[in-house]
Amino acid sequence: MKERIRREDLFDKVMTANEAASLFKDGMTVATSGFTPSGYPKAVPLALAERALSGDKVELTILCGASVGDELDGALSRSGVMKRRYPYQTNDSLRNSINSGQLAYQDMHLSHVTQYIDYGYFGKINIALVEALAITEEGGIVPTTSVGLMPQAIQNADMVIVEINTSQPMELEGIHDIYMTEKPPCRKPIPLTSPNDRIGKTYIPCNPEKIAAIVFTDITDKVRPLGPIDEPSKLISKHIIDFLKYEVKMGRLPKNLLPLQSGVGSVANAVLGGLLHSDFEDLTCYTEVIQDSMFDLIDAGKVKVASGTALTPSEEGLKRLHDKMAHYAKYCILRPMEISNHPEIARRLGVIAMNTAIEVDIYGHVNSTNIMGSRMMNGIGGSGDFTRNAYLSIFTTVSTAKNGDISSIVPMASHIDHTEHDVAVVVTEQGLADLRGTAPRERARKIIENCAHPQYKPMLLDYLKEAEKGKFKYQPHLLKEALSWHVRFLETGTMRIEKNLDEAIKETAVNKE
Amino acid sequence: MKERIRREDLFDKVMTANEAASLFKDGMTVATSGFTPSGYPKAVPLALAERALSGDKVELTILCGASVGDELDGALSRSGVMKRRYPYQTNDSLRNSINSGQLAYQDMHLSHVTQYIDYGYFGKINIALVEALAITEEGGIVPTTSVGLMPQAIQNADMVIVEINTSQPMELEGIHDIYMTEKPPCRKPIPLTSPNDRIGKTYIPCNPEKIAAIVFTDITDKVRPLGPIDEPSKLISKHIIDFLKYEVKMGRLPKNLLPLQSGVGSVANAVLGGLLHSDFEDLTCYTEVIQDSMFDLIDAGKVKVASGTALTPSEEGLKRLHDKMAHYAKYCILRPMEISNHPEIARRLGVIAMNTAIEVDIYGHVNSTNIMGSRMMNGIGGSGDFTRNAYLSIFTTVSTAKNGDISSIVPMASHIDHTEHDVAVVVTEQGLADLRGTAPRERARKIIENCAHPQYKPMLLDYLKEAEKGKFKYQPHLLKEALSWHVRFLETGTMRIEKNLDEAIKETAVNKE
Repeated sequence: MKERIRREDLFDKVMTANEAASLFKDGMTVATSGFTPSGYPKAVPLALAERALSGDKVELTILCGASVGDELDGALSRSGVMKRRYPYQTNDSLRNSINSGQLAYQDMHLSHVTQYIDYGYFGKINIALVEALAITEEGGIVPTTSVGLMPQAIQNADMVIVEINTSQPMELEGIHDIYMTEKPPCRKPIPLTSPNDRIGKTYIPCNPEKIAAIVFTDITDKVRPLGPIDEPSKLISKHIIDFLKYEVKMGRLPKNLLPLQSGVGSVANAVLGGLLHSDFEDLTCYTEVIQDSMFDLIDAGKVKVASGTALTPSEEGLKRLHDKMAHYAKYCILRPMEISNHPEIARRLGVIAMNTAIEVDIYGHVNSTNIMGSRMMNGIGGSGDFTRNAYLSIFTTVSTAKNGDISSIVPMASHIDHTEHDVAVVVTEQGLADLRGTAPRERARKIIENCAHPQYKPMLLDYLKEAEKGKFKYQPHLLKEALSWHVRFLETGTMRIEKNLDEAIKETAVNKE
Repeated sequence: MKERIRREDLFDKVMTANEAASLFKDGMTVATSGFTPSGYPKAVPLALAERALSGDKVELTILCGASVGDELDGALSRSGVMKRRYPYQTNDSLRNSINSGQLAYQDMHLSHVTQYIDYGYFGKINIALVEALAITEEGGIVPTTSVGLMPQAIQNADMVIVEINTSQPMELEGIHDIYMTEKPPCRKPIPLTSPNDRIGKTYIPCNPEKIAAIVFTDITDKVRPLGPIDEPSKLISKHIIDFLKYEVKMGRLPKNLLPLQSGVGSVANAVLGGLLHSDFEDLTCYTEVIQDSMFDLIDAGKVKVASGTALTPSEEGLKRLHDKMAHYAKYCILRPMEISNHPEIARRLGVIAMNTAIEVDIYGHVNSTNIMGSRMMNGIGGSGDFTRNAYLSIFTTVSTAKNGDISSIVPMASHIDHTEHDVAVVVTEQGLADLRGTAPRERARKIIENCAHPQYKPMLLDYLKEAEKGKFKYQPHLLKEALSWHVRFLETGTMRIEKNLDEAIKETAVNKE
């Protein structure tokens, strides 16, 4: 215990998860640690869910850095504890609650979240609930596998509840770099000019008097599986690498590129993975989450430094990480999400931003969050923070989904998270469209020709040509048909026209009867 | 001449506008000075248009800081010289060429333009064509009423053509603060922490050997008229000021607020104008353009410093500015648009961003650029630069247009420039909706209740309630009807349903005949 709690005056704050759970009152706002299922509190949320299921009314507003594991997002949404949630999630139960309308969810740019806490836009933060590796002599709190919004949660909360997770390796200590900004008008430049700069402390300052409870647990991070790297992902990665090579050849990128940012999930993991077999060397990463392929790149000596706010391996990667934590800690820096996702830094470093889209329309508007316009998938996460401020903004998507019944390239996106002004390059397994310097109709032809699946190309071209017959040819749309592909999918199960025709024939037949 | 050209070795570069116009070759890319009709080159573009009209083929790609006057955007688009244009415009002839499909136009975030020039994304810049007050001993070029993209144009161009405009008052010298950033990976923090900081030179460095021509002219800036401050604008301004007072009372804003940013045009001018009669004092502005009401605020002692990239008065304001240039120069700083619109600075200072929308949808997505989805109005300008990085992001619009036939609040925007993630407050003459911390359906009710025009409220509520009956209730839409208001307007001339019904009845009658 002395290794984990290095102040004797805090020993009497140690209690059970159930005792700590009793500190939460109905109506409170709680900010927690955790980012893309790692470093999130587990024992106390589980106890809190139990408490609610046994009949206590405890309805909470909950802020996390990004997605957290089922012990938090799952247990608290199923038990009705979670009534409102910010700013990103990936949990099935929580997603269902959001889409069924039981739970209020605001999907936010991650770079906005921590300053909104500081500004008081979420109201008072009653409790900061954080997973920690240890509490230092100074009362500082050492995070585990993620930092996320912990610093601002701890700074702003009335009360801090710490979960010391003994399953997290002590070698994590020292990996963190905690720097916090002031509120305007007192903000100063953030003194970070390279991904490997360390500008802060290795722990989060905390007034020990605010620590109301310390709970020990050894529940491990419920990380998400990463899909195997499939053929479309490999092709996407290849197109990107060929493009980056070309940019180097044209003198528009340095030989070792610029700091790479890559989104979360299997495709993002595959894109980075492709660099393993490329000629690129001395790479740096300035990103949100550090996934499995980053460890491969580190092991291969390709990546010098990986800066993020979370270590998010697959289950297999987690074992590897734990086995060689001291090794990987030398190459990784975990920062507060305010810094990992900061527009100032993304723009200064000139990141190469690579994020995934759900759908892209012919004019380059990107939907990252909503299925068929209404249904939340995960959230925008940090994609907008990086993309808007990037040296190069790349969006990837497989050209079709649902066995070809959905085209990821559509006439008009059913929801827009990144506008035409923010998207420089679109890549599918079919190819790459470089949209820099293009007018909308030029963009449309590039995206259709290079990125759309062959079975949808003629339909997309038909739409474009019909729209171009209208009076206004700047970004021509047929408003009556712009969303008809989505409507067709909802009604017939496919965006393809053939099947739709069959259905229409049947329908006509029915009407005639 | 010696006052205007302070190096004798440049005297022999003085030539007529026609001679300078002969330096342009077909296919060239030209970057010019000018920002929201001020400080743009005039004599050479007019000569160039003449040259083209007399039969010479000179087709150019033209980059300006933002909108420029008719001598450039008008003359060159009508004469067919301009074939491609970036990144913002307000000229009738140019707009017609864009919408008729004769001219390729890319609408860009202004903060992206100068770095795209530096990165080589527009290809080689053949000519920088700039209006200047004077050329210094060092070969430095002193801008006139705007800075815009001049620094990067001059730095990157093979050849520089200078128009010395003798109608611009010499008292402008010293008002400029020219600071330029490096390209990644060598970028450093921009050392600006307050709107009144001066961090650069009063002129733009230029290798004198690149100066190929100097042309004298006295054509004045063709500034745009500002509409009189009408009743809806006054109401919008009042709602904003009441809201800001409330934020101060709640401790979320300092008493003298934070640096104000206000868009271009009559409503923006009116919003700032309202501050004249408020209790706010010691205000600062960190914005793009300095319009008439800023001079009122300066004269009233309300504003201590106004930082922008252009002085853009009305015709009346221009006279006042010229009469008291030395006075206003003490309070104004003109910076490169890279700095005036820089995400790093907007976020550091915590600007209060106030920009105008064409339409806003019930979930808070904003259309700033396209009429009925297809037709370019002006462009996004700097609204995205400020809004994304603001302390508070406010969008204003009058609740109806075209005598009430268009509702500015719609079920789904026909084009999106700013997403739900970037819009904190929406204001119309009807009222103000504070969207911070809200889930989509909460946003919808606030926007409909507080901002929509009473005649459209029931229709908007009907849409929302119908959409909420669907399976997915996160951001519920009826994709078949989402754009039907726009379709109705295009077909019947109004978004109102009554008229639409009348038309439908007539149409049915016709069909029956």
